[in-house]
Amino acid sequence: MKEKTEDHALMDKIVSLCKRRGLVFQGSEIYGGLAGTWDYGPYGAELAHNVEELWRKHFIRERDDVFAVQSATLMPEAVWKASGHLSGFTDPMVECKKCHHRFRADQLSDKKKCPDCGGELGEEKVFNLLLPVALGSVEGKSNMAYLRGEIAQGMFVNFKNILDTMRPELPFGLAQIGRAYRNEIAPRDFLFRVREFDLMEFEYFVREADWQKYFEMWRIEMWRWIERVGIEKDKIHELEVAPADRAHYSKRTIDFEFDYPFGRKELYGLAYRTDYDLKKHSAESGAEMSYFDEVKKEKFIPHVIEPTFGHGRTMFAVLLSAYREDEMNGEKRVYLKLKPEIAPVKVAVFPLLKNKPELVKKAREVYAVLKKEIGAVEWDDNGNIGKRYRRQDEIGTPQCVTVDFETLEKDDVTIRDRDSGEQERVKVKELVAKLK
Amino acid sequence: MKEKTEDHALMDKIVSLCKRRGLVFQGSEIYGGLAGTWDYGPYGAELAHNVEELWRKHFIRERDDVFAVQSATLMPEAVWKASGHLSGFTDPMVECKKCHHRFRADQLSDKKKCPDCGGELGEEKVFNLLLPVALGSVEGKSNMAYLRGEIAQGMFVNFKNILDTMRPELPFGLAQIGRAYRNEIAPRDFLFRVREFDLMEFEYFVREADWQKYFEMWRIEMWRWIERVGIEKDKIHELEVAPADRAHYSKRTIDFEFDYPFGRKELYGLAYRTDYDLKKHSAESGAEMSYFDEVKKEKFIPHVIEPTFGHGRTMFAVLLSAYREDEMNGEKRVYLKLKPEIAPVKVAVFPLLKNKPELVKKAREVYAVLKKEIGAVEWDDNGNIGKRYRRQDEIGTPQCVTVDFETLEKDDVTIRDRDSGEQERVKVKELVAKLK
Repeated sequence: MKEKTEDHALMDKIVSLCKRRGLVFQGSEIYGGLAGTWDYGPYGAELAHNVEELWRKHFIRERDDVFAVQSATLMPEAVWKASGHLSGFTDPMVECKKCHHRFRADQLSDKKKCPDCGGELGEEKVFNLLLPVALGSVEGKSNMAYLRGEIAQGMFVNFKNILDTMRPELPFGLAQIGRAYRNEIAPRDFLFRVREFDLMEFEYFVREADWQKYFEMWRIEMWRWIERVGIEKDKIHELEVAPADRAHYSKRTIDFEFDYPFGRKELYGLAYRTDYDLKKHSAESGAEMSYFDEVKKEKFIPHVIEPTFGHGRTMFAVLLSAYREDEMNGEKRVYLKLKPEIAPVKVAVFPLLKNKPELVKKAREVYAVLKKEIGAVEWDDNGNIGKRYRRQDEIGTPQCVTVDFETLEKDDVTIRDRDSGEQERVKVKELVAKLK
Repeated sequence: MKEKTEDHALMDKIVSLCKRRGLVFQGSEIYGGLAGTWDYGPYGAELAHNVEELWRKHFIRERDDVFAVQSATLMPEAVWKASGHLSGFTDPMVECKKCHHRFRADQLSDKKKCPDCGGELGEEKVFNLLLPVALGSVEGKSNMAYLRGEIAQGMFVNFKNILDTMRPELPFGLAQIGRAYRNEIAPRDFLFRVREFDLMEFEYFVREADWQKYFEMWRIEMWRWIERVGIEKDKIHELEVAPADRAHYSKRTIDFEFDYPFGRKELYGLAYRTDYDLKKHSAESGAEMSYFDEVKKEKFIPHVIEPTFGHGRTMFAVLLSAYREDEMNGEKRVYLKLKPEIAPVKVAVFPLLKNKPELVKKAREVYAVLKKEIGAVEWDDNGNIGKRYRRQDEIGTPQCVTVDFETLEKDDVTIRDRDSGEQERVKVKELVAKLK
């Protein structure tokens, strides 16, 4: 019981920090908020971008076998019919017979009584999560399209185009970072269960005989990513998903679950999708989806290993992993122990006092050099130094540089480390090398 | 007449090149394509990403006064009611009385006869471009939301949150790169008129008295961007938009028009939006949208200058500007004279022959070093060298490096320049510095 209270407290602290420091706001908040949507403020947008760029580096740029793709979020009904989502992309739903509120059946501990009014619950029904969009100007004759419920289909429908233009050799991957949409019955738990979110994902095409080998390779690579982005490994647990619980296209799935404040739930997924999607699209569209092995003179439809990374859930897990409270100089403080590579601000530069022109001038010079060399550098002259440290600690800035009166004499500055709070004097001319 | 023929030829060439080399494919092409959507293949995705990153650098990272924001694409009806889009975001439409096809009235040269069947056209009507999406699981009680028709509203509805968390001083900007949607009556002209597209845009908040000064500042800055990204300046024309043609929120708008193959049409826009949006949102939501000037002790709603950059149109204008045909070594060739900063591949590395292990080994070493130092480096051992050059020319790779038998003796390689075709021998140890 105690543990549960503490966890809820952590959740509140994270949500509050995100709002207070401009990381994450409720979507359309001034209108009461649109459930299941979130907006990123300046630091949140930078953190989000840095996570994306690190993923791109890790899974595309540092490799030779994965190509980027960027496909539209609107796709026609035919795609979702072939993929099986029109019939299979559903959640179980129950409705209260008394107040008519609706709930996800699998999230109710008591399936008989309504949690809102205590009324009797009706039969469990299936509810499709795809969001339809009527395109075109002619009513009743619209092209029915859907906002994509997963980004994978963008890779599958372009598979033939990629083969024709890039002539890649197996095994190879098609990667995408992009928006997906789900009509969640009950959006909740901050960035966890939402209606609009980014996915980072790739389809890795292999020979059927090799699927286990590459499944295992990607399983290990996903752990490397978890470490690299700064998610606590101790909070991650692999779950071998039981056949009955797997998506309709999968023959094996491992969920990477994370210990969120509200319990152990999915963070990432690794699925063996077989040749299900390519085969279905080939049959439904008539397009040739085979790969031709030039050496062995074999023609076949490749099988697919799919590692999936929710972007918002990554942000959430990173924030939960990085959140720290301690005491420094007799005062309580909060800081985010973010990896420098993803921190929204790498270095903050402070003039000791904002009303001393010679200090400000010198600090501006230091700032200009760092900004040019390091990029994400912030100027802060607001309030006393202690207040500025607290602000930078809370957004996870690894280093702060203070220009004081001694700087004017000795041309050195104070570098202060976020995690230890330790301070060090460094010559201005050595500053860039030191910080990098 | 001749000019028109040539322009259509250019259009066909660009579209064909984009498909042939894996830059741009029709969205969901294997199902006949979803009109108004486009997918980017590997080189297109890289080019798109590089354009975004350059924009981010130019308008956010190199400045001190513009902050990034990332807001949801789904926003509730209340937002679009306040912004005026529910009533004002429309195109004029006419319907044929005979075949019932619908057209954009402003795109028809003859407004009386149907271009498809020759039938009589009906009255001009207004057609709203916002795409509605019914969220929630309860039929008839859905939360009506809309896919955003512009990304600006995400900055306006978060204005108060940003003031509270960042305490920025005027003037400052909120920038966003993100997806927008329009239910175009007649999507056409490749990446020009589409239903789903990315915008790069910022709202720059100023004192009312300063609007002309900053309007002019951003006008000049937009020209600097046009040059930096590699769009032909000669093809750009400023158009002072007449009051009757301006959007409902604008008191002054300049369109930056581009000479597309199908005529001179909008590429970018620069609008003075006044305090229209913040005032409307303040009135409709009840939220305080005032800025408080600490020095002058004044409280007021800022005015807004908005530079808007269509991302797909930027890609399109860049491709049209970069497309070249010439003759080299007695053969016709096509190349894209892309700025190196946005080229999908910076350097391609070729072993002269793929069946000589010692050449391949050495080339792999060179490739590994370049990949680590430069990043976007491609390995190509497919076909003869001439064929590989043509391939790299067509995707705009600035430099190609060939490892040949001489390399094994003298440890030098051939660098070949895309634009001039000139070749130069360079020592391997000097290669990185030379290419950078």
